[in-house]
Amino acid sequence: MARVSQEHLDARRRQILDGAARCFARNGFHATSMQDILREAGLSAGAVYRYFRSKEELIGAIAGEAFAAIRGAFDDAARTTPPPTPDVLLGRVLRTMLEEQVPGGDRQEFARLIVQVWTESLRDDALAAMMREGYAGMRQAWAKLVDAYRDNGLMTADVPADHVARTMIATAQGFIAQQAIFGDVRVDVLEDGLRALMSMQDPKIS
Amino acid sequence: MARVSQEHLDARRRQILDGAARCFARNGFHATSMQDILREAGLSAGAVYRYFRSKEELIGAIAGEAFAAIRGAFDDAARTTPPPTPDVLLGRVLRTMLEEQVPGGDRQEFARLIVQVWTESLRDDALAAMMREGYAGMRQAWAKLVDAYRDNGLMTADVPADHVARTMIATAQGFIAQQAIFGDVRVDVLEDGLRALMSMQDPKIS
Repeated sequence: MARVSQEHLDARRRQILDGAARCFARNGFHATSMQDILREAGLSAGAVYRYFRSKEELIGAIAGEAFAAIRGAFDDAARTTPPPTPDVLLGRVLRTMLEEQVPGGDRQEFARLIVQVWTESLRDDALAAMMREGYAGMRQAWAKLVDAYRDNGLMTADVPADHVARTMIATAQGFIAQQAIFGDVRVDVLEDGLRALMSMQDPKIS
Repeated sequence: MARVSQEHLDARRRQILDGAARCFARNGFHATSMQDILREAGLSAGAVYRYFRSKEELIGAIAGEAFAAIRGAFDDAARTTPPPTPDVLLGRVLRTMLEEQVPGGDRQEFARLIVQVWTESLRDDALAAMMREGYAGMRQAWAKLVDAYRDNGLMTADVPADHVARTMIATAQGFIAQQAIFGDVRVDVLEDGLRALMSMQDPKIS
């Protein structure tokens, strides 16, 4: 039996994930079949099923990579002095996700795919577990960023860092939902909106 | 043929919508059948189909009422001096939606229902049209509120009011998505997060 190098296995796995990501981004989760993914990756069923047994496993792996990339961007930001404000950072991450990560894909279809993954996770336990893990990582990274905002005198309200983290993530999720449903949201809309919020005076504290 | 009063027709319609809302909030959109709704409303198929031909029509009508209620809350807020800040207003609206509107229902199931409606609207044109209309109404109401913030000196950033409106709505949508997926978000998390954002200093303008 021929030995297959780890490098070869990794490259094959990458080829499958990239093909699946293109299919999902183009046609959404439900309209994509394993057959479509085989064809897109140019591989046989045997070659693909050895790595991933279902569409759910594939989308779980793709989402896991996306979470890791987003988390990396937040970790980098928390180490910058002064750290980029939420409008700058969310704008940067969303542009990377929606504009650069979808080569040849459609932005709205990609946003729809994310919303479909949310809905799928309501009935698929493995996907739900992956979502919880990825989301916990994003929350930790944002919370560190909130500490950095405070250390740099950029944020004065005394509320739990995790609450700020969840609110920031909610803003990005809602933006993706709007992009999925309406397809007409530019990233600068969110950047402007966050800047406007940051410019508000709380009548209770001023 | 007996004449049926408008009042009777309205009451019957209300009875069906309330029964459907309870079913959807309890079991979600997909797991609810028209049979379940007939049983919950205590009516025959003939009586229900006269008003609504499908689950999609029912959920469309329920969502339309929810949009109208939310819009009413925003319109009221825009007429108040000083207008309530986003943390106060979104907190109030989300509490009403998630806590008071779901009598006997489950908060997480209700949030899941909303996410399911987003996903459904990706393939149902009538539902998509209703979403666009309801959303346009919310955007207009929020934009008026942004004008009120400016008139009262509460917001200084010079960005299009509609961009602020979309960002505020995104925050609420993301909050609902988190409640649907993770089921553990209290409204005060979002209130705290928005207050923290409002307490930020933009290094570019300060």
